[in-house]
Amino acid sequence: MLNSVRVAAIALPLLIATTPSLAAGRTMADVLAASKPSDWRPLDPNNTLYMDLPSGRVVIELQPDFAPKHAANLRALARARYFDGLAITRSQDNYVVQWGESGAKKPMGEAKAALPPEFTRPAAGLNFTVLPDPDTYAAQTGWVNGFAAARDSAKGSAWMVHCYGVVGAGRDNDVNSGSGAELYVTTGIAPRLLDRNITVVGRVVQGMELLSVMPRGKGTMGFYQTPEERTPITQIRVAADVPEAERARLEVLRTDTQTFTDLVESRRNRQDEWYKVPAGRIDVCNVPLPVRKEKS
Amino acid sequence: MLNSVRVAAIALPLLIATTPSLAAGRTMADVLAASKPSDWRPLDPNNTLYMDLPSGRVVIELQPDFAPKHAANLRALARARYFDGLAITRSQDNYVVQWGESGAKKPMGEAKAALPPEFTRPAAGLNFTVLPDPDTYAAQTGWVNGFAAARDSAKGSAWMVHCYGVVGAGRDNDVNSGSGAELYVTTGIAPRLLDRNITVVGRVVQGMELLSVMPRGKGTMGFYQTPEERTPITQIRVAADVPEAERARLEVLRTDTQTFTDLVESRRNRQDEWYKVPAGRIDVCNVPLPVRKEKS
Repeated sequence: MLNSVRVAAIALPLLIATTPSLAAGRTMADVLAASKPSDWRPLDPNNTLYMDLPSGRVVIELQPDFAPKHAANLRALARARYFDGLAITRSQDNYVVQWGESGAKKPMGEAKAALPPEFTRPAAGLNFTVLPDPDTYAAQTGWVNGFAAARDSAKGSAWMVHCYGVVGAGRDNDVNSGSGAELYVTTGIAPRLLDRNITVVGRVVQGMELLSVMPRGKGTMGFYQTPEERTPITQIRVAADVPEAERARLEVLRTDTQTFTDLVESRRNRQDEWYKVPAGRIDVCNVPLPVRKEKS
Repeated sequence: MLNSVRVAAIALPLLIATTPSLAAGRTMADVLAASKPSDWRPLDPNNTLYMDLPSGRVVIELQPDFAPKHAANLRALARARYFDGLAITRSQDNYVVQWGESGAKKPMGEAKAALPPEFTRPAAGLNFTVLPDPDTYAAQTGWVNGFAAARDSAKGSAWMVHCYGVVGAGRDNDVNSGSGAELYVTTGIAPRLLDRNITVVGRVVQGMELLSVMPRGKGTMGFYQTPEERTPITQIRVAADVPEAERARLEVLRTDTQTFTDLVESRRNRQDEWYKVPAGRIDVCNVPLPVRKEKS
């Protein structure tokens, strides 16, 4: 068995010897078990989308700190029922699953057909939790309010990074051609080459396993070639528009807390017996962003 | 559409201005189209496994430069028909798909039930192609004979890195408990924390899309909870044991060639019109390792 969660004390002497900072030697499970209610925040229903598929519900959290125009447009598209009856059109192995359609002949309500790019934003004014480890692509990485991000102090800019499960707004070659009417989610290795080239709107916080297994399309770039291959979208709704009783009541771990900092350390230097060589470092996309049911 | 392959000249002035080394401005397609027959090597039938599933064939290339004992054991297990009739037992989202079984009551032929670890090897004696870009986890990354690898000159050691599609030998907590009887393939973000903690045996060179879509298991760590959820393995064979007419005649691009160096550069600074901000760097796991049908 490829064991990756079991906890044991026996490895601690080794790990302490190689990583003195780890006297506590806590696993992620230990860290989460010790978390306080204030370490968590509920999803904002106004920034949460439910995409209902025949196989179940996908919950997407939007990030208006970085893409406010796209968040507003997605709310408008959902309220116009734009996505309902459209489909998942593309599944490219080790890259993305894509759905929706730009320019579908459907009412768009208050939504715009195209938006200016929200690829980056000023770094100033963000509550940025820094990850100290080096990154191949960015001068600095970390998290902003629960989302993996990067910043370039020289340029004074910040952006969301393409980790697994990140949702973005497809566009054509024109940077002004995206609207959110066509969305993608990353399903393989972190496609960091997309960073700063496309608008990231948020991430999947529940139901990723429904999207990641979509049969790969045989057409160019993984597009499906026949209507039969497509999975229909039952509906996409803003959580705030769904009766409270029907909402997925989820909380995400705040990334600006000591608990999250401890979680990152527990992953940089794994504390279960299975691991023999602690990495001592971690990539921003390898850090889990915990989600749980609201404690009621 | 999330366009990621279209080629256009219009972006070249921008890209040349920001990356002077790119006067050529070639895309990966350009680079591959200009490759010479000597830039490619056929798969060695003795180091190639075919895993036949109801959905089709998965082709795995073994890497005996790093894991010779495991390569030999896998040949012996295949020749004993050890895997035939076993199943895919685990699919954990954004992590691994796993198959086979340690200690199954089946004849093992010449195979050993457990092997010493082949997590790392001496860096000396490897034809290591260096990637100049920084890596979060290793002092240096690059490629050895078509496989992503890393090395630590201080320790004088080298190892294969866990990119998407890498195949490894599951083990329990004891580092001597792996044998190849239980294998996994990485299906999400590169799980680099596994590097140097488990034996990588090779990588999937064809058919990855058959494994990556396996429904995620609902048990702990993505294990399937009922036999019905498991996908049976029809057979695993060494390519050398399969009649020539039934072999997948594949070639992989040599990584110790100028063509591959040019390919890496074409990915570090994408040359198609869709990309507006060239990354200028690349992670070793973001570099495609091209495979093609043998030219006959």
